[in-house]
Amino acid sequence: MYDILQNITKPEDVKKLNLGQLELLASEIREAILNRDSIIGGHVGPNLGIVETAIALHYVFNSPIDKIVWDVSHQCYPHKLLTGRSDGFITNEGMKKISGYTNQDESEHDFFKVGHTSTAVSLASGLAKARDLKNEKHNVIAIIGDGSLSGGEALEGFSNAAVLGSNIIIILNDNEMSIAENHGGLYNNLRLLRETNGCAECNMFKALGFEYKYVKDGNSINDMIEALSSLKDTDKPSVLHIHTQKGKGYKYAEENKEKWHWSVPFDIENGNPKWDMSGENINDLTYNYIVDKIKKDNTVVVVNAGTPGVFGLNDEKRKILGKHFVDVGIAEEHAVAFSSALAKGGAKPIFLVMSSFIQRTYDQLSQDLALNNNPAVILVAWGGISGADMTHLCSFDISMISNIPNLVYLAPTSIEEYMAMLDWAVEQNKHPVIIRQPKEMIHSSLPIDTDYSNLNTYKIANQGNCVAIIAEGSFFELGKNLALELNKHNINPTLINPRYLTGIDENCLENLKSNHQIVVTLEDGELDGGFGEKITRFYGTSDMKVLNYGSFKEFTDRANLDDLYNRYRLKPELIVKDIMAILK
Amino acid sequence: MYDILQNITKPEDVKKLNLGQLELLASEIREAILNRDSIIGGHVGPNLGIVETAIALHYVFNSPIDKIVWDVSHQCYPHKLLTGRSDGFITNEGMKKISGYTNQDESEHDFFKVGHTSTAVSLASGLAKARDLKNEKHNVIAIIGDGSLSGGEALEGFSNAAVLGSNIIIILNDNEMSIAENHGGLYNNLRLLRETNGCAECNMFKALGFEYKYVKDGNSINDMIEALSSLKDTDKPSVLHIHTQKGKGYKYAEENKEKWHWSVPFDIENGNPKWDMSGENINDLTYNYIVDKIKKDNTVVVVNAGTPGVFGLNDEKRKILGKHFVDVGIAEEHAVAFSSALAKGGAKPIFLVMSSFIQRTYDQLSQDLALNNNPAVILVAWGGISGADMTHLCSFDISMISNIPNLVYLAPTSIEEYMAMLDWAVEQNKHPVIIRQPKEMIHSSLPIDTDYSNLNTYKIANQGNCVAIIAEGSFFELGKNLALELNKHNINPTLINPRYLTGIDENCLENLKSNHQIVVTLEDGELDGGFGEKITRFYGTSDMKVLNYGSFKEFTDRANLDDLYNRYRLKPELIVKDIMAILK
Repeated sequence: MYDILQNITKPEDVKKLNLGQLELLASEIREAILNRDSIIGGHVGPNLGIVETAIALHYVFNSPIDKIVWDVSHQCYPHKLLTGRSDGFITNEGMKKISGYTNQDESEHDFFKVGHTSTAVSLASGLAKARDLKNEKHNVIAIIGDGSLSGGEALEGFSNAAVLGSNIIIILNDNEMSIAENHGGLYNNLRLLRETNGCAECNMFKALGFEYKYVKDGNSINDMIEALSSLKDTDKPSVLHIHTQKGKGYKYAEENKEKWHWSVPFDIENGNPKWDMSGENINDLTYNYIVDKIKKDNTVVVVNAGTPGVFGLNDEKRKILGKHFVDVGIAEEHAVAFSSALAKGGAKPIFLVMSSFIQRTYDQLSQDLALNNNPAVILVAWGGISGADMTHLCSFDISMISNIPNLVYLAPTSIEEYMAMLDWAVEQNKHPVIIRQPKEMIHSSLPIDTDYSNLNTYKIANQGNCVAIIAEGSFFELGKNLALELNKHNINPTLINPRYLTGIDENCLENLKSNHQIVVTLEDGELDGGFGEKITRFYGTSDMKVLNYGSFKEFTDRANLDDLYNRYRLKPELIVKDIMAILK
Repeated sequence: MYDILQNITKPEDVKKLNLGQLELLASEIREAILNRDSIIGGHVGPNLGIVETAIALHYVFNSPIDKIVWDVSHQCYPHKLLTGRSDGFITNEGMKKISGYTNQDESEHDFFKVGHTSTAVSLASGLAKARDLKNEKHNVIAIIGDGSLSGGEALEGFSNAAVLGSNIIIILNDNEMSIAENHGGLYNNLRLLRETNGCAECNMFKALGFEYKYVKDGNSINDMIEALSSLKDTDKPSVLHIHTQKGKGYKYAEENKEKWHWSVPFDIENGNPKWDMSGENINDLTYNYIVDKIKKDNTVVVVNAGTPGVFGLNDEKRKILGKHFVDVGIAEEHAVAFSSALAKGGAKPIFLVMSSFIQRTYDQLSQDLALNNNPAVILVAWGGISGADMTHLCSFDISMISNIPNLVYLAPTSIEEYMAMLDWAVEQNKHPVIIRQPKEMIHSSLPIDTDYSNLNTYKIANQGNCVAIIAEGSFFELGKNLALELNKHNINPTLINPRYLTGIDENCLENLKSNHQIVVTLEDGELDGGFGEKITRFYGTSDMKVLNYGSFKEFTDRANLDDLYNRYRLKPELIVKDIMAILK
């Protein structure tokens, strides 16, 4: 099954194989990739497309002396398979240990922990410059996909790598796809270069000052070995533009590249997902709301930065949205500035972004949006504590967003509240409003406010005494459970839905002083710089005791969520213990 | 003196003038620019170079129906002079009122508050798309300098503007300068285009899909009117590449473009600054340290992103640093990733950046640097509460940086401590270390620690009781003064230098409980998400009263610092009042 692969424990083993064996190795690598992805899920298309490149790289270069840096690193599986980590693709134990991204703690052949896009050229430039300062000689290679090319950091990196004046080899893996289709003028030039077999005079890489080579079939091991050999030990910044097929070797992934960029566990035979993905979900509700809104208001426009799938916006839905949908490609900074200006121009933009990626826009949130106070709307997906890979954590957004002036960050506690907040946000024209999408489909039968213009007003769900629980967004359920647990101790706590993460309700907090001894804050995110600390500061000079719960300031990695909740004491019974210790 | 200018109160007035009069107007505008700059300081070169463009824009287009967006907006003075704001350049009262940047609250001819670079194309794209959604017809024009072109947001913007499919006119003002000289491969292409009078086949703007035009003499009103007229009402994304002379019309600014990018008040006759800039300063100390270090260690390298002047690194010093200095151009994201990788590669990078601009790197600090825990060093200049323009505030860096895991953010309280921290940071290899440079030249005669590897250990400067003052960095002096003021009330407070902004000393804080009732935190920055709140959270369940002082979450604009300090109660006598109110 893995006849050749089982003998590959290090890159040197690759160099001993002949072309026929390398081609068999490629098939075995594809089998191993599909094995892992079908069992635990992961990136499919990016890994299947880059198999031959990875083989050729390790055949030609001498890792880890020569240093290979993978952009996003969601295409590093073949590289991992060639650098002693095939266990991560074959055994269940190994799959738990080996992550889906590069990690220097896993192997000396990895140099960075990477999961966000567009960083490889900058990182490789740093390695190259360090090499030059130390008067060492080796190759530094960055592999970046065409989708990642549109990100600002990548473009800054290209411009600077071009003037390094020494060895750096950038492999631009052009599979004519981002996660979805590419967007932006950059792709005009890539197309021209493909169509002219790399010969067009108008070449953005040559314009920057790079040596440039084109490989028409980047899935040919032979052609890739030839091209890389010709660039090895070059003393000039070079771009090797290769054309590959995303998803190559797996029928379903070849046929539907967008769907198979990443997949949940699936049946290899028929490509069917093993998880039931049906049922009501936040994406359908949001999409239906927007489509409905557009019918009434021609100025509503959805903005996204290369991740339409996160929001369930498949090709069909994007077509229906038409000119009311703008995918700017991987260009989150542009997306925020663009949205701010859309609002200034009288349109109603809704920018859809994942919590982990809104991190790429701090200065745009601050300068382009908040300072100008334009009424753009941003929906943040997946915000909260999770068992995600360390590169894709979503627990920092409250702390990042809520300390920027003028922004209004809302945390709905139910689907009904989310829909009401969304509609208010779109219709109002006074504030930039960000809404943290609910992680679960919690429904509320309580009456829901429709007007949120009276900022920073908390909603009291239950008026009790002694203990007040302020539980934001997705942790409102935890608050409810905590209240039930306290009832067992004959405490009827006040339960508060704060709704606003960007400010405190001083009135409400002041009133609590009269008949409460303890305030508990629950937030689905980092404690440091978060929502709870602002409440604690308010009570700094009073007799109120405040207990803040949330995640610690740390990068967790594919953690077990239950373990995390235990460690963070995010469980009713643990919190009650803390409360009783104070009350006793 | 201002014969023509005095009759210009709106853009329509410009349209009535003939070419001779327009040329006289240009001289008067230059006179007005120099008048303002010489009295209150400001941007010189960028404004003098763009006079003819601004005149031609208002001659050809119909502002504010046609919308003009200025990148950075440090070149908006001529535009302001043509849109009813000449008072801001002529009278002392007016200079106070009118800012040095665009501001929609000042005039309907401005659309955004802008002070950070590289945003205009994205902002203009948003206005253009809003126009299209509303089925309106007008021109949207972005003006961006060649220096700003290297910023990621600008490049993302260009790629997306190219595919807008409708009217957007981007004027690329190429004066062959950033603040200092340009850096990056992009400038190879601009040079080629200049040298070929815009005719080179290899044209990055055409590659992206833009219509492209070149104007050799962008300081010719006639040529600019002709070029802009030919593009007016175009239905295609267009780039007008113009070549202008930075500082034009003022001998000193023409001769030394870098020095005259921005100036303190000066004598117009001889160009001499009116402020005494001599004496010991942080930049010389830092530079001397680095030069010395490089002699002993060939791997030390200074990284900067287009603002060498902020750190006193003039041309002469840059030449001395040689290969140990890398200006990446305006590309802060690249700079952080590059620095992280330099450290990974075994070099010792020191990235120099202004507080307001480190905002542009949140995700790179988090992902490229902190997650990888590489021992790069970053020096942050000008951090703290200030009377700066709202676009250049430096009060948010603690809150932005200190909630990212793994980073070590140090706040020296004296020059001696700064130098010790800098040397420790450069020599250690465990943490990414950021140091907030002291704002003033405070010297300390106390013994200074040289080893900061025992993270989050506070230093007790005076052991007292009842009240403990934890005063970070530049506010340590305020802490000392507060202590003196408390002495008058027979209180001998404990005074603590926390040194670390990224973590708390739990031991120290715990010990304070035994004989202190009040902890006061003083931080030179925003309270929300800052350093003080972490301390308050620590005491949340204790009887300790905590008073946090710092700035509010707000964008202030050219505020009087004393007014701010009063409003934030950052004065010993005000804080003592608050303390006594609790103790009574």
